[in-house]
Amino acid sequence: MNIELNRDSRQPMYLQLQSALRGMILTGALPPGCKLPASREMARLLGLSRNTVDEAYGCLADGGLTDVRPGRGTYVRGDIRAERQRAEEAIDWEARINETVREYVRYRTGIGAVRQGGRDVISFTSLAPDHQLFAVDAFRRCMNDVLVNEGGVLLNYGYVRGYEPLRRYLIGYLEAKGIDCGGNELLIVNGFRQGLELTVRALCRPGDTVACESPTYNGALGMFSACGVRCAGVPMDAEGVDPEVLERVLRDERPALLYLIPTYHNPTGVNMTMGRRREVLALAQRYAVPVLEDGFSEELRYDGTAYPSLKALDGGGCVIYAGSFSKVLFPGLRVGWLLAPKALAYYLYHLKYNDDIHTGLLHQAGLWAFCERGYLERHLRYCRKIYRERMAAMDDALRRHLTGLAKWTAGSGGFSFWLKFPTGTDARALAERAPEYGVAYAPGDSFFPGGGGRNYVRLGFSRLEPAQIETGVTRLSRLFGTATHSPKEMT
Amino acid sequence: MNIELNRDSRQPMYLQLQSALRGMILTGALPPGCKLPASREMARLLGLSRNTVDEAYGCLADGGLTDVRPGRGTYVRGDIRAERQRAEEAIDWEARINETVREYVRYRTGIGAVRQGGRDVISFTSLAPDHQLFAVDAFRRCMNDVLVNEGGVLLNYGYVRGYEPLRRYLIGYLEAKGIDCGGNELLIVNGFRQGLELTVRALCRPGDTVACESPTYNGALGMFSACGVRCAGVPMDAEGVDPEVLERVLRDERPALLYLIPTYHNPTGVNMTMGRRREVLALAQRYAVPVLEDGFSEELRYDGTAYPSLKALDGGGCVIYAGSFSKVLFPGLRVGWLLAPKALAYYLYHLKYNDDIHTGLLHQAGLWAFCERGYLERHLRYCRKIYRERMAAMDDALRRHLTGLAKWTAGSGGFSFWLKFPTGTDARALAERAPEYGVAYAPGDSFFPGGGGRNYVRLGFSRLEPAQIETGVTRLSRLFGTATHSPKEMT
Repeated sequence: MNIELNRDSRQPMYLQLQSALRGMILTGALPPGCKLPASREMARLLGLSRNTVDEAYGCLADGGLTDVRPGRGTYVRGDIRAERQRAEEAIDWEARINETVREYVRYRTGIGAVRQGGRDVISFTSLAPDHQLFAVDAFRRCMNDVLVNEGGVLLNYGYVRGYEPLRRYLIGYLEAKGIDCGGNELLIVNGFRQGLELTVRALCRPGDTVACESPTYNGALGMFSACGVRCAGVPMDAEGVDPEVLERVLRDERPALLYLIPTYHNPTGVNMTMGRRREVLALAQRYAVPVLEDGFSEELRYDGTAYPSLKALDGGGCVIYAGSFSKVLFPGLRVGWLLAPKALAYYLYHLKYNDDIHTGLLHQAGLWAFCERGYLERHLRYCRKIYRERMAAMDDALRRHLTGLAKWTAGSGGFSFWLKFPTGTDARALAERAPEYGVAYAPGDSFFPGGGGRNYVRLGFSRLEPAQIETGVTRLSRLFGTATHSPKEMT
Repeated sequence: MNIELNRDSRQPMYLQLQSALRGMILTGALPPGCKLPASREMARLLGLSRNTVDEAYGCLADGGLTDVRPGRGTYVRGDIRAERQRAEEAIDWEARINETVREYVRYRTGIGAVRQGGRDVISFTSLAPDHQLFAVDAFRRCMNDVLVNEGGVLLNYGYVRGYEPLRRYLIGYLEAKGIDCGGNELLIVNGFRQGLELTVRALCRPGDTVACESPTYNGALGMFSACGVRCAGVPMDAEGVDPEVLERVLRDERPALLYLIPTYHNPTGVNMTMGRRREVLALAQRYAVPVLEDGFSEELRYDGTAYPSLKALDGGGCVIYAGSFSKVLFPGLRVGWLLAPKALAYYLYHLKYNDDIHTGLLHQAGLWAFCERGYLERHLRYCRKIYRERMAAMDDALRRHLTGLAKWTAGSGGFSFWLKFPTGTDARALAERAPEYGVAYAPGDSFFPGGGGRNYVRLGFSRLEPAQIETGVTRLSRLFGTATHSPKEMT
């Protein structure tokens, strides 16, 4: 019996022995029915104490791999596979999953799923920034410096609210955008999603209603599903969410929260007009409904006017502002923030502690150093220029290849175009075939709270260079050209 | 009127103007009732377009700072403070908080709170590692190298499961500890707490029961409260959780989850014996109750035998293993992991995505490089030696100063001692006075699911050097000496 034990390892000998024997049993080197050497004999063979061998044999029996027949010895069990299967089935996990969670996973693996396609596919599915544009070297120096200056402290537990210098920087950054942070508290969170999660958990009970634009960010729809809250979608026009329907929803459905993406809305790209911002905010105040403003793409402005955020217009009352640099700087760091009225922030703070104590500290410190040294500004100027070119390339390619097949509005910011195909086009079904055409996109139906919208498509362009955009749109035109000219595809 | 505007700023002019005027109104430089210059006049004064001024005036009015009297002009409102107050009270946040969340925050700010004390206080409250021992420089080089090698990718979005090289490293690390990872999935999470949260959310419904040791980690009690689950505590003896009571609880209360800390239990320090581990696991299997094993302190072994984790003894069936390096390496990074049977891991994966997409990537990569280069092993050898000395200093000081006042068991690992004072001692009340004596500790009652335990105290020593330990324990003996000799303190 060829068993190698390492006396210098910190793993106890009996565990090493157990592990070696287990391997031999599972691979069949010790076949079913085979008798293991008596523990005294085994101990002699390996130069171990008998206790050690007994301990190892005990573990094997506990693990269901052997039978101990009193007075006769230890035998490899007859049907190890069945035995292991049985052990793995000791618990029927499926049956134990919380129904809300099961419902959410069904959503996410169904309509929430987006087919990405393989290596040669040109993918318009992503809204991630292009990391080829990242100022990695500048960031590396920032990380190095913060580790030199206060590494020990940054590697130990920190404050729930976040890294203080980053918090101060962000407050200044928000004030410069016209937001009055007085009466509010800023909390660093793990990107936008955790901010959304904390807000929904604090303000909603299962069964409550959340109002939102329709369509809206499909990840938010997943979050609402995971939290067991209903979703009342409010349609949009070119200026933003429809105020008449919004008022009806606020009045009749008394939502616990109104979730809005006023600037470069996902997926439509609409930048809510100033008048509409005022109107929407006045409605939220009148019906005393908290607003969660998703400012994820505010920095992605290439042309046109910057409107103030709802939070900047709010008298201090009802807007919770969720921000993130994840579309311009380093989403891999998972750093975002919430600015919330103090009375609410008190609860968000405790929920954040409960979730994970605080957001990773070193990431926050590195990001702070990067911003503080002016690299954020520099990077924004640089990448806005690139993304503006890509957006123009997109618009140009769409005009040349999809005119007549689809309608869209050229935006002035953000990372995506929102295309409407003729009613009857099934962009969801076509997305399944898209990789055959060498292209992938996000089918629009996943963005609608109430279902529908199968004739819509979201095209993200942030990670594609103009030549890829041209090729990708050509492929799309072939895919949709076939579809819209073939009556079988129409329903 | 002294208004400075910066024409090079990316902040639009009307927002700069609004912000300047708002500041003057809030500080009283523009007092209540004061009339603002007509917009035409203001535009001329500042060299702005009239539209810009109108836009700024509109924002001030929206923010409730000014009144626009048609035909007469714009006036600073009469009672700005009251107005702001009203705006801030547009929403009664307290009334809107989810009851479960409110209940949890009440718990956490009540019994869950631990008084830390000020700067000159010697604090035994913490279970954090001592960052003076951290190999910061080695870690800094690791971070630098991973940023040089694949910075762009690490700074963009990553995989939900975690950074692949770290996952592979951890699987090897767990296999070396006798855990068979086959049939399981490893998921990187933001420290132990997020692992606990995902598990509770996947397996429990509000109102369900979770069984756990009594006493147990108070942060877990907070989590159960935040998730709206009941807690059935099972008492412990010197070998671990009591198997007879455990069986009764598993049989009669059908808990959705059994949460256990078998190794260097928090707060008691008990290392569950081998026989007890087998017994407990057999019970969980018999009653088909999922076990969440908290392995947070497994590496904190200074003497004695290492027992296998429950997960290593489990036939594959019912144990979810939650691990973390936060007690030995860099808790500020917030990196932990869950090893769970695949059928469950599928749901945990989707919940993790929902929470925050993935754990910060760069932290994972830095940690991987640190471990891969053998620094973890080296650091463990070094800090085990230091912590062993501190534990011995603690035991020594307790013997000399607290014999007769309290009882405790010298442990062989972990970061704390668990002291029992005579019934009637109110360690919670004394904790409030402890800072006057220059000392702080965690009152034991916060660790008991069912209340009680006011005569227990947890003393963490990880961040204290032997001289501080000596002084701190002297102070404790004075505090408790006074208390136990003064009949008024007894109840």
